Amino acid sequence: MGTGSLHLARADVHHGWDRDRPPLLTVASGAELTVETQDASGGQLGPGSTSASVAELDLERANPVNGPVFVTGARPGDVLQVEILAVEPGRHGWTALIPGFGLLADEFPDPWLHVWELDGGEAVFADGITVPLAPFCGVLGVAPAEAGTHSVLPPRRVGGNLDTRQLGPGSTLYLPIEVEGALFGVGDTHAAQGDGEVCGTAIEASMTVSLRLSVRRDLAIDTPEFDVTRPLERPTAAAAGYHATTGIGPDLMAATRQSVERMIAYLERRHRLSPEAAYALCSVAVDLRISEVVDAPNWVVSAFLPQDLFLAT
Amino acid sequence: MGTGSLHLARADVHHGWDRDRPPLLTVASGAELTVETQDASGGQLGPGSTSASVAELDLERANPVNGPVFVTGARPGDVLQVEILAVEPGRHGWTALIPGFGLLADEFPDPWLHVWELDGGEAVFADGITVPLAPFCGVLGVAPAEAGTHSVLPPRRVGGNLDTRQLGPGSTLYLPIEVEGALFGVGDTHAAQGDGEVCGTAIEASMTVSLRLSVRRDLAIDTPEFDVTRPLERPTAAAAGYHATTGIGPDLMAATRQSVERMIAYLERRHRLSPEAAYALCSVAVDLRISEVVDAPNWVVSAFLPQDLFLAT
Repeated sequence: MGTGSLHLARADVHHGWDRDRPPLLTVASGAELTVETQDASGGQLGPGSTSASVAELDLERANPVNGPVFVTGARPGDVLQVEILAVEPGRHGWTALIPGFGLLADEFPDPWLHVWELDGGEAVFADGITVPLAPFCGVLGVAPAEAGTHSVLPPRRVGGNLDTRQLGPGSTLYLPIEVEGALFGVGDTHAAQGDGEVCGTAIEASMTVSLRLSVRRDLAIDTPEFDVTRPLERPTAAAAGYHATTGIGPDLMAATRQSVERMIAYLERRHRLSPEAAYALCSVAVDLRISEVVDAPNWVVSAFLPQDLFLAT
Repeated sequence: MGTGSLHLARADVHHGWDRDRPPLLTVASGAELTVETQDASGGQLGPGSTSASVAELDLERANPVNGPVFVTGARPGDVLQVEILAVEPGRHGWTALIPGFGLLADEFPDPWLHVWELDGGEAVFADGITVPLAPFCGVLGVAPAEAGTHSVLPPRRVGGNLDTRQLGPGSTLYLPIEVEGALFGVGDTHAAQGDGEVCGTAIEASMTVSLRLSVRRDLAIDTPEFDVTRPLERPTAAAAGYHATTGIGPDLMAATRQSVERMIAYLERRHRLSPEAAYALCSVAVDLRISEVVDAPNWVVSAFLPQDLFLAT
């Protein structure tokens, strides 16, 4: 059922989910489309930008989402199947600490920026520290049923800003449809991210994305679900091993914060990173797992740092 | 510095961390020891047990911990390095739903039990469903500084019931020492568990464990940390892929519950499991990741089901 050259250009974006927004493209179920995404700053950050540029960000222009795409035949109660076929990064990316944003916003009040070169399959963070790339779409969603414009920042049961790093090539996402035509959108492409995206930004970059959209009426889901067909672990990470820190306590959020604080402390003492750089590295490369959530009253969250980041040292 | 045949027998256990409990063994830093652990029921559940046996559990006998082990030279402020050398399961294990215990205790009020045969590297759960084994120690800890007897159920900054499934052979755990001699203990051995241990029990089994304990004075940690030297992902899981469900919302615990509820629903409809069996399978084989914890006000928790469990179907 692929219909060939369906395309959303870089300018084909919106900044809010809205069931009444006119679609920019109408496709049949089974159609393949290519999308030129913008980075999460909408082009405001890139080569030549500095921490000062972060302070000057116009947040009205942030988080552009390509779409809406109207999928013929999609009805409320159906499921939209989104096959992620390819996600190809542009040549540059950025990671920022944005004041007021992120898991440890209270501990990191100042703007900070790192600009990445993405020429190969990895990107240099600092002398001897390299982050392997694993591009995916941070935003994949459809319009909520509730009338009005809904912020693109939070994810919802209809998807949106899921920032789930396994949603790269080879994965298939299933989204509950709430409005006629689904009104699909995609954006916020990331060249690499850890589970958690703790500082609030990943390696943010514009990309070329290929997707196949299909309506499913044989599935019953309440929240997004997805299938992953590629390995979750890099061979180099498996070979090099991991260092893990933990957060332990009766509140999952506090335990999560503690696990990241301890990883930042580890990166400061072991790899002589600044706290800001350590926090940013956690966001792009450290994975948060819930180790146990049953041994009342204390839960354990573990943060896993892959040691292959440091193979160059 | 290994000193040979240091050993804790199956009966060398306690049921509460206590700085004033007399040690059963004193070892030098660098010593290797072998430990015969009990299963978490202290032998109350095993072949021949039924759901009725779960209802009759004497919880006073649950969670036996081998120890205490006094490590010569260990002082408050030092770090105990625990190298996990080998963890060999016995021939049987069990997984139970224990009323009042577990992430979804309110939804699963009735006792339920599965007894596993552990003869090979995997264990059969049901027709066509097999769980690969990955044995580790659920409890690895030292005594808290605070006087009195402390429950063995919750983990703490000094470790204890961490139930962190990566603490198997090849891993090294670092624990903050709070009392003279550290007063190390080990137990609650699991033949397999998912990140989260959502129903509150894993594949619970007695085991033979080999460890090396060393005092470190060159480390600065506030909570347990660990190094992992073996791959986190099974080759069969990497090849077969995963199905993932999500929980999305402003409370991490509610999102965690939702991700597991959705996985139980998936296992019921896709693999025709009973809710109880699905919940237990999540506990032994499904991994919880924090996908994003920054897109206020909604966080995403993802539950990953490895598809290699079903290769036999």
